[in-house]
Amino acid sequence: MPDRSHQRRRVSPVDFHTRLDEASAASGSGLCIGLDPDPARFPPTIGQRREAIATFCRAIVEATADLACAFKPQIAHFAAQRAEDQLEEVCAAIRDLAPHAVLILDAKRGDIGSTAEHYATEAFERYGAHAVTVNPYLGTDAALPLLERGGVIALCRTSNPGAGELQDRDLEGRPLYVAVAEMVAEQWSQHGQCALVVGATVPDQLSRVRSSAPALPVLIPGVGAQGGDLNASVLAGRSETAPGAAGVIVSSSRQVLYASDGPDFATAARAEAERMHRELTAALAS
Amino acid sequence: MPDRSHQRRRVSPVDFHTRLDEASAASGSGLCIGLDPDPARFPPTIGQRREAIATFCRAIVEATADLACAFKPQIAHFAAQRAEDQLEEVCAAIRDLAPHAVLILDAKRGDIGSTAEHYATEAFERYGAHAVTVNPYLGTDAALPLLERGGVIALCRTSNPGAGELQDRDLEGRPLYVAVAEMVAEQWSQHGQCALVVGATVPDQLSRVRSSAPALPVLIPGVGAQGGDLNASVLAGRSETAPGAAGVIVSSSRQVLYASDGPDFATAARAEAERMHRELTAALAS
Repeated sequence: MPDRSHQRRRVSPVDFHTRLDEASAASGSGLCIGLDPDPARFPPTIGQRREAIATFCRAIVEATADLACAFKPQIAHFAAQRAEDQLEEVCAAIRDLAPHAVLILDAKRGDIGSTAEHYATEAFERYGAHAVTVNPYLGTDAALPLLERGGVIALCRTSNPGAGELQDRDLEGRPLYVAVAEMVAEQWSQHGQCALVVGATVPDQLSRVRSSAPALPVLIPGVGAQGGDLNASVLAGRSETAPGAAGVIVSSSRQVLYASDGPDFATAARAEAERMHRELTAALAS
Repeated sequence: MPDRSHQRRRVSPVDFHTRLDEASAASGSGLCIGLDPDPARFPPTIGQRREAIATFCRAIVEATADLACAFKPQIAHFAAQRAEDQLEEVCAAIRDLAPHAVLILDAKRGDIGSTAEHYATEAFERYGAHAVTVNPYLGTDAALPLLERGGVIALCRTSNPGAGELQDRDLEGRPLYVAVAEMVAEQWSQHGQCALVVGATVPDQLSRVRSSAPALPVLIPGVGAQGGDLNASVLAGRSETAPGAAGVIVSSSRQVLYASDGPDFATAARAEAERMHRELTAALAS
């Protein structure tokens, strides 16, 4: 196996919020493009093979670089295809083709401290991410090794249909997801730079998170394929005191990646990203 | 990159509890050896290099195969070293050298359903695991793709010092970790075969989980380096109605792996595993 240690980068943990501010200004909005590569959906011109993952993702990044505030590769899609080497390539391509953008590794990691150290190495050194998504269930001490080495985006209220089964239940006077928002705002933020994940499918919960954690940026997945409403999400999630474009990072994956299944997939992805960028800019200006 | 599709295996989801019963009988206890390879701690004879990970793990598996009910590779330790190919080798070695044992991929995954499908492919096909550890925060629907394809071991009450920050707080009349035990016992178990993770550091919480979920096996990490007490864990965690050795799978990683830092590391690991096996057998018989 070749040594690619030269590709590894250590990212300063103080970079995340500043970088988000600069990326929002440079791109003109808080649009995040999620990279969930699925070879079965690649156009025949690229080839529906695992070997084409990096080529496909690179074409998407190239076509949308100026419009994107952030790129968010989803690691499971690479791991299922034995394509960690291609994920390294894609991360390098994001840093190269969109040097203004925030690189978010969507990994939803969470483990005890000694193991979290290794997840921090994976996210911030191996893949050179600026921020990583993290599961809050283990509490503050388990998040510390990640907080000390890069941006941490904690799952708060997720976008899946059954998310409320635990997250919406009452924990000592507030829903569990609000307790998580408070823990991240009050505890985690003392040790590093954070954000929260709240799905676009639940604007009411997003408003509630906004009241509990006004200074934290919110990453909002679930627009598009999952049915979330972009305008309602921006109205519920905006905060003038949070970093970035009014504190909202709105993420779309499948709707951009698979806008066309033909040879024009990159052009179609750009058109879809442009449409979302306009919609997002209008919502932010309203 | 070579095609190793021949190494992939699809494991039937009905196998986990039966396999755990058989593995407990074959090995004579519920001892689980955690594989958390850290090249800096390898003996000089093996070489303190990432390339030595598979050699080191294979030697541990070979030395302890007959004593172990389960082997539990911890994926972060491989990911931080860019050693997924070696994790594939180690998993193949476990199935080959310890064909009776349960192969648990310790990955603590958790994501929305469409992504959970990819994590299921990673755990059960790519690595050929019989069970995978899963974070419960996203609820039942996010766990379904995993439950349908293999054993699922849900984090319930973890062993880290700050685990109680969320997990011990009151959720509608019970601690959050008890609500998780109930959700897994009542909901997840309808769709597949489950177990719960409860740290050896918290025997009181383990007793409480036992009352709420008497039929589920409990995976107990935290014996050894983290300070958990084996005997107290077995007393608190045993259940005659759960699969396996009275429903307890007691896991030790660093205490076995690094029992010696000399050329006798495998012999020393076996001696430590034998000591734990005796202690566990005595606790189960008491």
